[in-house]
Amino acid sequence: VRGARGAIAGIAAAVAVAWAAHGSGVGSRVFVVERAAGSLAVYDLDRRELLPGRIAGLGDLSHATMTFTPDLRSGFLATRGGEVTRIDLEKVEAAGEVLTSRNSIDNAISQDGRYLAVAEYAPGGVTILDARDLRVLKKHAATVERDGRTLESRATGIVDAPGNRFVCVLIEAAEIWLIDASKPDLPIERRIRTPEAMPYDAMITPDGRYYLVGHLESPRVSVLDLTRPEAGVRVVAFADPSFERGAPAKLPHMASWAVAGDHVFVPLVGEKRLAVLDRATLAFQRSLPVRGHPVYAVRSPTEREVWVSFSGEEDDAFVQIVDVESLAVTDTIRLGGRIYHMDFTPRGSHLLVTANRDNKLLLVNAITREIEDVEELASPSGIFGAWRAFRIGL
Amino acid sequence: VRGARGAIAGIAAAVAVAWAAHGSGVGSRVFVVERAAGSLAVYDLDRRELLPGRIAGLGDLSHATMTFTPDLRSGFLATRGGEVTRIDLEKVEAAGEVLTSRNSIDNAISQDGRYLAVAEYAPGGVTILDARDLRVLKKHAATVERDGRTLESRATGIVDAPGNRFVCVLIEAAEIWLIDASKPDLPIERRIRTPEAMPYDAMITPDGRYYLVGHLESPRVSVLDLTRPEAGVRVVAFADPSFERGAPAKLPHMASWAVAGDHVFVPLVGEKRLAVLDRATLAFQRSLPVRGHPVYAVRSPTEREVWVSFSGEEDDAFVQIVDVESLAVTDTIRLGGRIYHMDFTPRGSHLLVTANRDNKLLLVNAITREIEDVEELASPSGIFGAWRAFRIGL
Repeated sequence: VRGARGAIAGIAAAVAVAWAAHGSGVGSRVFVVERAAGSLAVYDLDRRELLPGRIAGLGDLSHATMTFTPDLRSGFLATRGGEVTRIDLEKVEAAGEVLTSRNSIDNAISQDGRYLAVAEYAPGGVTILDARDLRVLKKHAATVERDGRTLESRATGIVDAPGNRFVCVLIEAAEIWLIDASKPDLPIERRIRTPEAMPYDAMITPDGRYYLVGHLESPRVSVLDLTRPEAGVRVVAFADPSFERGAPAKLPHMASWAVAGDHVFVPLVGEKRLAVLDRATLAFQRSLPVRGHPVYAVRSPTEREVWVSFSGEEDDAFVQIVDVESLAVTDTIRLGGRIYHMDFTPRGSHLLVTANRDNKLLLVNAITREIEDVEELASPSGIFGAWRAFRIGL
Repeated sequence: VRGARGAIAGIAAAVAVAWAAHGSGVGSRVFVVERAAGSLAVYDLDRRELLPGRIAGLGDLSHATMTFTPDLRSGFLATRGGEVTRIDLEKVEAAGEVLTSRNSIDNAISQDGRYLAVAEYAPGGVTILDARDLRVLKKHAATVERDGRTLESRATGIVDAPGNRFVCVLIEAAEIWLIDASKPDLPIERRIRTPEAMPYDAMITPDGRYYLVGHLESPRVSVLDLTRPEAGVRVVAFADPSFERGAPAKLPHMASWAVAGDHVFVPLVGEKRLAVLDRATLAFQRSLPVRGHPVYAVRSPTEREVWVSFSGEEDDAFVQIVDVESLAVTDTIRLGGRIYHMDFTPRGSHLLVTANRDNKLLLVNAITREIEDVEELASPSGIFGAWRAFRIGL
């Protein structure tokens, strides 16, 4: 072809097509938790089909999450039984396991890809592993001396943060930890008390700036600006001050909050509305009525829409779509019974949705709202695409 | 290990470490153009080392760019000779080539991963290939009837956009094309004239909303809101109205613009300052003086900083760092002679930088500003990490 460069008229082509016969690559692997079976199904997003078989025998997959190394060789499954299971992304099989505690909750991979940190419930603390071989490098026990007595605490909400840090929060000790994974001994560089008691869930904003901590039965969150941790934590109320004053507030799962455009969207547990906060200040802006009790708000990568799922049999098959600019509900679509999890593909063209009661994984076109593929799965819940490797805090 | 679950004291581990001996995976592959040699070097970001050898004999690599399929099996190199070369990301070798024209400028992959669109100079137009096997599926010739005569045009600035669209612009015909790759015949669904002549470069904002077109020797850009293409193009001036009034303006390469926080940062060619525009309206806000003639402004994934490179021997070894919140230059660091390209790693922890005169690829810690790795390369220029597969418009 190169020799003919000057002589072409129209198109001359020499195409090697041998590779096209093979399956698609690791970038298209999406792991879907089959909770009742304790297995992972693997969806090939490029081919739009399930890979044959399951990765089975993975233990208790309640609230299981997965993180991925930036080189996309490994996924790490955090289970409630205290195991970390390595999934080989190329071979699509379990390949390595370590028991870090009796009960763990979640994990995170450092931005340099070298370390895997696990938040532990029992014994409480943080375990840091070498992401290449799962060797345990460090254990930080969540044993805190306070008022002359020793407090055993659980750790939760662990995320990666800029500066090769890990951030987590201790539930009983009400303390945020910043762990510096850029230093060889992986020290806790800062411990910051939260003003409210019982922080039990946390998230980091997608820009890696704010660590938001939810407290049990409190309408307030503790906010740490990670660019100025020395300034300490401030407390922000997310309840509508003009609405249901005095009613007990329940904090939703922090992963259900969506940061999009100039706003933060907060599904309020047990209320048929979202709270809309100002993204810069986290001040309450307004309530946004929706059709049922919201569970998850998920932002599109374009930040133009937030998709909302619901609890309760009358509503849980529906998704409502909020336009971020106008703050109006622009669409209500029926997808399938008991929607458990929604995740956008990385450039925002589609959503993957699990309909748990209907035993289905759905591929939904984000523009046309059409269901373009349906796969049968047993009691599907969490959805984890390999591209999470490239997002802060996932 | 599972049987011992109830009996552990501390840590029990059964770790399979066999995989750790292998090289790292496709997510860590970074392709660096060696322009003079017409070859690609491959940097393993995880291992922090060059892979052995080069992918050589690739032709004229001036302004060469690479895109990657979302499954991370393929990278496509667009060269000035009209060839598209497929790089197998697993085997790290050239594996497939097609000549789509005598002279092409850039390419894009549709959000569903199925199509590769190439913008052609000669003959002008857009070629759409099957991303799985490089078969040519469609040719849209940039031959436009206007005022009774036939106009041959070049096409440039091709990007992927939401709705499985491609967007490009015709230089001589001054026309933006929206191509609908969600339809089987891949039609041009909309042709929109630009009010100014000679559009010669374009970009899409990282949220996929605005298509910005630069015009030759004009201080104005044409802006198309892709959520409302029927509203047509508006023209926005980016020159400082109080500064060098009447001086001829040169438009910088549109890829040099950085969208971060509430602003757009525009390096002004031949002036020692950036223009700062409002992100929402693109209205001029202020000038930001810098140490030399700026070439590229690159935003951190955290959107908290913009890193700026310069032309001219006195300045081209330096980078200045602009704080997006305060709009102040907070750091000036010397990295190496004639900085050609800068790219952040996906979670923002590091930058990859080519110092062309010094024949070096540098890995710079974005927080500490320290150079953590240096590799020797011959006349390096463009840097393309596989994670570009997951970004809109790259």
